[in-house]
Amino acid sequence: MKNFLLPAFLLLHVFILPAQDIKINGDRLHETLLTLATYGKNEKGGSDRVAFSKHDIEARKYIKELMEKAGLEISVDFAGNIIGRKAGKNPSLKPISFGSHIDEVPNGGDYDGPVGSLGAIEVIRSLSEHGYITNHPLEVIIFTNEEGGVVGSRAIVGALTQEALQVMSNAGVTQAEGIKLLGGNPERIAEMKRNPGDIAAFLELHIEQGGNLYNEKLDIGVVEGIVAIEWWEITFKGKANHAGTTPMNLRKDPMLPAAELVLEVNRIVNSYDGRQVGTVGKIQAFPGAGNVIPGEVKLNLEIRDLSSEKIWKIYKEIESKAKELAEKSGTELEVKHIEVASKPALADPMIRGIIKNQADKLGLSTKSLPSGAGHDAQEMARIAPMGMIFIPSKDGISHAPEEFSTKEDIANGANVLLQTILELDKRLK
Amino acid sequence: MKNFLLPAFLLLHVFILPAQDIKINGDRLHETLLTLATYGKNEKGGSDRVAFSKHDIEARKYIKELMEKAGLEISVDFAGNIIGRKAGKNPSLKPISFGSHIDEVPNGGDYDGPVGSLGAIEVIRSLSEHGYITNHPLEVIIFTNEEGGVVGSRAIVGALTQEALQVMSNAGVTQAEGIKLLGGNPERIAEMKRNPGDIAAFLELHIEQGGNLYNEKLDIGVVEGIVAIEWWEITFKGKANHAGTTPMNLRKDPMLPAAELVLEVNRIVNSYDGRQVGTVGKIQAFPGAGNVIPGEVKLNLEIRDLSSEKIWKIYKEIESKAKELAEKSGTELEVKHIEVASKPALADPMIRGIIKNQADKLGLSTKSLPSGAGHDAQEMARIAPMGMIFIPSKDGISHAPEEFSTKEDIANGANVLLQTILELDKRLK
Repeated sequence: MKNFLLPAFLLLHVFILPAQDIKINGDRLHETLLTLATYGKNEKGGSDRVAFSKHDIEARKYIKELMEKAGLEISVDFAGNIIGRKAGKNPSLKPISFGSHIDEVPNGGDYDGPVGSLGAIEVIRSLSEHGYITNHPLEVIIFTNEEGGVVGSRAIVGALTQEALQVMSNAGVTQAEGIKLLGGNPERIAEMKRNPGDIAAFLELHIEQGGNLYNEKLDIGVVEGIVAIEWWEITFKGKANHAGTTPMNLRKDPMLPAAELVLEVNRIVNSYDGRQVGTVGKIQAFPGAGNVIPGEVKLNLEIRDLSSEKIWKIYKEIESKAKELAEKSGTELEVKHIEVASKPALADPMIRGIIKNQADKLGLSTKSLPSGAGHDAQEMARIAPMGMIFIPSKDGISHAPEEFSTKEDIANGANVLLQTILELDKRLK
Repeated sequence: MKNFLLPAFLLLHVFILPAQDIKINGDRLHETLLTLATYGKNEKGGSDRVAFSKHDIEARKYIKELMEKAGLEISVDFAGNIIGRKAGKNPSLKPISFGSHIDEVPNGGDYDGPVGSLGAIEVIRSLSEHGYITNHPLEVIIFTNEEGGVVGSRAIVGALTQEALQVMSNAGVTQAEGIKLLGGNPERIAEMKRNPGDIAAFLELHIEQGGNLYNEKLDIGVVEGIVAIEWWEITFKGKANHAGTTPMNLRKDPMLPAAELVLEVNRIVNSYDGRQVGTVGKIQAFPGAGNVIPGEVKLNLEIRDLSSEKIWKIYKEIESKAKELAEKSGTELEVKHIEVASKPALADPMIRGIIKNQADKLGLSTKSLPSGAGHDAQEMARIAPMGMIFIPSKDGISHAPEEFSTKEDIANGANVLLQTILELDKRLK
């Protein structure tokens, strides 16, 4: 009787619940998030689940169990990414892929990565429960070592260099050694490269890592793209001298133009319309003693925006101001552009529209905004139309034990992810 | 014949050469300076004759030889200071003391200290050659470890603490151990304390360690006094955050008020008449990464002036500006006054007048100016009327291998020292 009744029960659901009414199980999703958080929890309440650590490795077992329960067919690729597949009705279609990561920065939080990873698994579990079969195959990807250089997603798009594989990770093993610990094979990574067209679309759900949604009390962020990052090291060189015996009018103190430039960076970045950000996060005086007029002051300038062109336009204005300040103060200016290899990745306009539309239908408030932080989605955008869904993060905090998103916000994000997948499944051929 | 003629020859000089016509031997003085410079010369051309090093110890033997040749009776006190005495006509008078140090900072120069030390010895040698006997006893003091905390002069005035004796020196031994190496006895230092009245006057000849005389092509600096030094550590506390995801208008970036304060320090210090100096020589952002908005920016403020009252007046204006900047930027201000135990030491007005007058008589141009650097004379001023004579230092450089004063300037300084001693000898009772 039981064996006969169960399929009939599922069948019933398919008939009585249209796609737009399928909802993920928010309580269950939250419970998995709390369980995952126990892997690597430290005394300070932070997460030490850094990639390749024993916490990461144990947590991945838990993730695989969840994926199996959701009805996914699991494999681990050469880069150690966990891939879960659910067949669609049309095997000739390319998969709709989605996922995130479960590794954290040292002493990190419980939400950056897990929300999108567990949200993706919950989406599959809900669809399976409702017996809903998409046209496209669905693919959940739990990426390897996002926090340590988007290692897994770079491997998928063929952008992980041999050099990057030799970089030491926070777990004290190289990326290559770590990948082996996850069951990957670093020597065969080149073989796993996917090309444009291999994936129908890529989606990632994530906490905002900024205060826009939280401060404005909004539910969902529709990500416009992931910003480009440019770095410069700017040095003013004057003349180191005795701070007691050198009269004010005989000084060539590089601290003065450096301080003025800090203020100019802020003024210039704010003078443009848009959501660009510019930061001086580091400043150093040399020799750096209270009783010595510095010979040199170095500062780091970072500018981020969705448009590389705009970044450089802003930078050029800052540079010309720096030259002016150097001349005025009789100091020498030295500027070094630092390669951070971070190109902008724009979200696909159609996917952005779908995310917004589905959030509206769910009665959720939205805001379009750029992602100022890097994500696996940024790499995946190289080979597939990409979309990202943000949910609020308390006080905009991330990468810290204080990271927090509410159960409701997480459920909202997963529901938008689910509906976006279903809508994409209809529209994409 | 020879034995008979020699005293007659000296007697002749005393009669035919009035005090104001006695000149030191500039060539000989310069030669001793070049010889002393060979002790501790390093490959970079700098002097590594740090206090208590083998170079210091060997150089002191050379100094003692010179002092003996000059006709001084030598002793080493409990602090390792070399004391050379020449009796005067009136044994009931207190000595006129003068001297400097021969130790250098690591990789230092050949003039800071040696000019005044060798100048003092040359003054005695010249007086002896001319058979000139002063009323007062004369005392040459070569102070122990000036660069490492005016150790010898502090011991003489009773200001060297037990703690200071345990401080590690640049030679890798504690001050106490170093003093033993020089033949002193750190355990008996308390016994050597001299009191106000024990010394009739103290004089020090020194290079300027600043560019006033050199830039204005002047011969002699008449030191008004040695400035007081005050230090503060000023911290602005904001909120560390992700430099990519935190919009400009949601930041509490302490870098901005810190930068503005650097400029205000300069503006405020320059807004007062006089020769006060104010310096921000050190600035640090925490955590100090290019991609993190700092949570904290710390800067060191130093102000020096002959008047402690003026220093605090200037500081109060800076502090009130800092409070204003903190409020404006929504950051917190924390200020810590750092004890540097450096009180101002004014030169004795009568001695300043004599120095100026004697320089004029020698046809030398003068300028009154404060000493921005500390000296043994600063300590000696606690117990005796004090005067300092500066000579030009090329480009105002000191504490570096590039330190340089001409043979003429050194001879001028020693002649002013000599004439000042002789004039003081007449005036003081």
